[in-house]
Amino acid sequence: MILQEAILHIPLSQYAFANSEMNLTIRIRVAKDNLTDCVLWYGDRVQPGDPIVFTAVYMKKILSDMHFDYYDATFETPYDRVCYYFELKDPEETRFYYADICAKYLPVERSEFYQYPFIRREEICEEPKWFREAIVYNIFPDSFASGHREIVGQGKEMEWQNGIRLKSRLGGTIQGIRENLDYIQKLGFNCIYLNPVFTAGEYHKYDLLDYFHVSPNMGTDEEFRELVQDIHNRGMHIVIDGVFNHCSWYFPQFSDVVEKGESSEYANWFYQLQFPVIRPATEEEKPTYSCFAYERKMPKLNSSNPEERAYFMKVCRYWIREFKVDGWRLDVANEVDRGFWRDFRRAAHEENPESVMIGEIWESSETWLNGDMFDSTMNYDFRKNCRDFFALRKISTEEFHDRIVKMLLRYRTGTLRGQLNLLDSHDVNRFLSYCEGDLRRFRLAEVFLFTSPGIPCVFYGDELGMDGSSETTLRGPMPWEKVQDGEDDFFSRLIAIRKEHEELTYGDYTLRYMDHDGGYIYQRTWGDHKITVCLNNGSTTIDLREYLGKGSVLLSESYEAGKLGSMGYAIIEEK
Amino acid sequence: MILQEAILHIPLSQYAFANSEMNLTIRIRVAKDNLTDCVLWYGDRVQPGDPIVFTAVYMKKILSDMHFDYYDATFETPYDRVCYYFELKDPEETRFYYADICAKYLPVERSEFYQYPFIRREEICEEPKWFREAIVYNIFPDSFASGHREIVGQGKEMEWQNGIRLKSRLGGTIQGIRENLDYIQKLGFNCIYLNPVFTAGEYHKYDLLDYFHVSPNMGTDEEFRELVQDIHNRGMHIVIDGVFNHCSWYFPQFSDVVEKGESSEYANWFYQLQFPVIRPATEEEKPTYSCFAYERKMPKLNSSNPEERAYFMKVCRYWIREFKVDGWRLDVANEVDRGFWRDFRRAAHEENPESVMIGEIWESSETWLNGDMFDSTMNYDFRKNCRDFFALRKISTEEFHDRIVKMLLRYRTGTLRGQLNLLDSHDVNRFLSYCEGDLRRFRLAEVFLFTSPGIPCVFYGDELGMDGSSETTLRGPMPWEKVQDGEDDFFSRLIAIRKEHEELTYGDYTLRYMDHDGGYIYQRTWGDHKITVCLNNGSTTIDLREYLGKGSVLLSESYEAGKLGSMGYAIIEEK
Repeated sequence: MILQEAILHIPLSQYAFANSEMNLTIRIRVAKDNLTDCVLWYGDRVQPGDPIVFTAVYMKKILSDMHFDYYDATFETPYDRVCYYFELKDPEETRFYYADICAKYLPVERSEFYQYPFIRREEICEEPKWFREAIVYNIFPDSFASGHREIVGQGKEMEWQNGIRLKSRLGGTIQGIRENLDYIQKLGFNCIYLNPVFTAGEYHKYDLLDYFHVSPNMGTDEEFRELVQDIHNRGMHIVIDGVFNHCSWYFPQFSDVVEKGESSEYANWFYQLQFPVIRPATEEEKPTYSCFAYERKMPKLNSSNPEERAYFMKVCRYWIREFKVDGWRLDVANEVDRGFWRDFRRAAHEENPESVMIGEIWESSETWLNGDMFDSTMNYDFRKNCRDFFALRKISTEEFHDRIVKMLLRYRTGTLRGQLNLLDSHDVNRFLSYCEGDLRRFRLAEVFLFTSPGIPCVFYGDELGMDGSSETTLRGPMPWEKVQDGEDDFFSRLIAIRKEHEELTYGDYTLRYMDHDGGYIYQRTWGDHKITVCLNNGSTTIDLREYLGKGSVLLSESYEAGKLGSMGYAIIEEK
Repeated sequence: MILQEAILHIPLSQYAFANSEMNLTIRIRVAKDNLTDCVLWYGDRVQPGDPIVFTAVYMKKILSDMHFDYYDATFETPYDRVCYYFELKDPEETRFYYADICAKYLPVERSEFYQYPFIRREEICEEPKWFREAIVYNIFPDSFASGHREIVGQGKEMEWQNGIRLKSRLGGTIQGIRENLDYIQKLGFNCIYLNPVFTAGEYHKYDLLDYFHVSPNMGTDEEFRELVQDIHNRGMHIVIDGVFNHCSWYFPQFSDVVEKGESSEYANWFYQLQFPVIRPATEEEKPTYSCFAYERKMPKLNSSNPEERAYFMKVCRYWIREFKVDGWRLDVANEVDRGFWRDFRRAAHEENPESVMIGEIWESSETWLNGDMFDSTMNYDFRKNCRDFFALRKISTEEFHDRIVKMLLRYRTGTLRGQLNLLDSHDVNRFLSYCEGDLRRFRLAEVFLFTSPGIPCVFYGDELGMDGSSETTLRGPMPWEKVQDGEDDFFSRLIAIRKEHEELTYGDYTLRYMDHDGGYIYQRTWGDHKITVCLNNGSTTIDLREYLGKGSVLLSESYEAGKLGSMGYAIIEEK
């Protein structure tokens, strides 16, 4: 019997999307091991004359998780207006599935099938090639460098205006980053994601005072311009951090509201204001304005206000046009008016159609990834799943795979490839800390990061074994003393493999083997190219010989003569 | 055992939405009769300090269909940033459900629950009150009236420019509509939805030549202005038909492209143009431009082009500002750039924040109904379900209810109330034709229309028993001869009941009884008010006494002493 409860198809979603003006992907979810056959029938929804001529595409079971099978039809369509239905078969029965109706009969009229109304160009996800092929190094500026292979380790503080201080903790500078680009590039990274560097009070620079200048205690605008130029001269790209959900309570427009109250021309620039607006003296006092979380020093901006919006669109354009940055990572993106992001995209693309927008959204972010807002979001679920499996070891291999499948199928294929996969960032504990310092667990996760669909993003210092589980330590000083120039180490090998094998960037993901003890083998395929990745997150040796064809080992640990030891890995290029 | 395959929750969708800045609805779908209890736990996702304090809301099973139960929690929230999870219980086990993970344990970090990131004002569906309470009369102008209680029955054709003809079939005019407003209002309708009246070649006026003038063979701009004034003077509203997907191949901007080719300033106003652009002489010749369907005489506009878009935004504003129309019904809405509709909404709301936009989208239209585009869509699924159950009788009562439940839950509650429910329109056969002329079936469907959530919309003449299953007959002349002024007929009674009982507009919908033979009883409740509607779409008499409390019968047929005969209905106000 077909388990109707399990069937899921959502039109115009990750279950039905265009890859180009003439190529569609249609998917359906059904219960695991439930069907013998699944056929997509599609036709021209505006075909002159009845009945509509339907064409069959035999759907391929591309992935399975604990409860479901996922079938896919990816095909060239001669029609830009498509109607479709599914034919589901098990040994006893055949059912048609259309417009959420599962029946023995087809509908009365053509409008009653599923519809792909029109393959519109602007709805096709097309992140620029440079971005899909990016290998990202994430720098927290205060902590990274104040000179060649050094970080001074103490704050470089100064007064901005009217007694407002610009803080610093470890003294990292723009110039420091410039002097270490060779280090980053030599590892193989081709893109830098820089946490905020504009004028702001706290050392982390998320409380902005001036959106048009680099924080003077980190460097000058001219130094930043040179940094971007140096990055581009090396063939690399740079994405900067944009904070548009909130600002500092000393942001001049907010100060104006504090001073003038309702008569301020900026009275509508902030969210949920009640007058008079005062700066509460203590954390216990409730502010009369909405904040970032409950942080009274960071009032929330009103991103629905046209004047506010126009101002920040200038910020968006300014750094792209004048400094040539390649994109924005956008802070607290899920709390801002979506219209703001749509305008932001339009502005950014007018300045540079190859610029990208990455939203800071930790949860599933389908609704922001339809081509009108972000190209990508920070994939914290990637970290979560790796943490639970490789580091904390609190989920089984089956649960891990279940979560990975859901992660691989929650977005359109193009969007999936553009996800910013990460194991840690300035906002969470270092991954190595979750591993209790066990580098073997850490490396399994890194191998998974560099061989998964989505853009690998490494937080500075992870490559040197940084750990840290408090704000101070996880944003600790870059351990330059550990750098051993010239060594062909784990990270540079991983990155080189990623770059040399486009199947790791563009390929499909299929499971080859898994066992309950932690053995997990998957394959990435793209055309004739195949990479098999074997991870042994368990305690027993796995004999891989029956799962592998002929191939050459690109990178491995505890792997010999076809046997993969506990905590070992092998990346194998199949011939 | 909890059937995990059946569980469905989608954040930021019809499963999780805000009704106001401090009121949320969270829903979950589970297998039918599977759970003993379902609890929503919610907390403040930015609460200072850990762990987050969660509050329980016992969820109510609001509806069930053939395979699923739907649980709802609608509650006032003290937080505008919410995280939440579900606790699912059956007799043997308890599971937590969060971020699509169904587990025995709760997650490690607060970001790993489901998130409602921020209840943003602009995402709350707030159609204007006048619209939610609308009872709509849909007029096809050519067919309706050329004078008081008359339609001349022959075309009023003329030349527009350069030999281009403006056609007409039955000779209906703007003036004709004006002279019969008393008829429409007396029936109880408070809103008119008018099919196109701007200058266009064909009698149906969907092939536009001039977006800024009423078609001279239908009337003058001045007459239209007076029509709108008359409608407003009666306390009624008017929604007009906007055709922005395509135009006539004699639209001057298209003629310019035909004449000047690539050098035309309008060369980017049309979709998928190939030069030279010529008007094919026969239907067999393939046009070098995209069309409405394959209709070569209606080239498709390029709604992504900024100049094209700016032009049509002027059209949008012009009719709202200068003529005071209350809204637009938008033709072929699912084939137009979504950015076009967002701009359209912004423009329309700047002219009149109470104006509405109704998209012509026949299928499920969730992705267009998130507050940034349409307030409403034309609910052809309503017609489909009524056709299959009441008219064609091809689905069982259980299947009918299954479809109705899915229809009631596919949008946010506010959006559901604003759906334009219809049994027929200018694009489909008359409902009575599907009933094979059986007025009893027709009336059951009309009772359902006027007692369902969503705005009832009646196509002109249905109230006089029009049938028709070809373009000519379904758009036939209004049968004015059948009007018997003064009669307190079926339609005016239904409309009066709808207006006098706000539970029919705003109330919940619950099933009270159904049987396989066609008996179907449901209740609409709003506060203390309750209306029970009993429909007998079967052949045996139903004894209603055990399903009804004390009440008074507002309207009925074949109902006596608590017994409802075959094809009878009863609308009962419970005390």
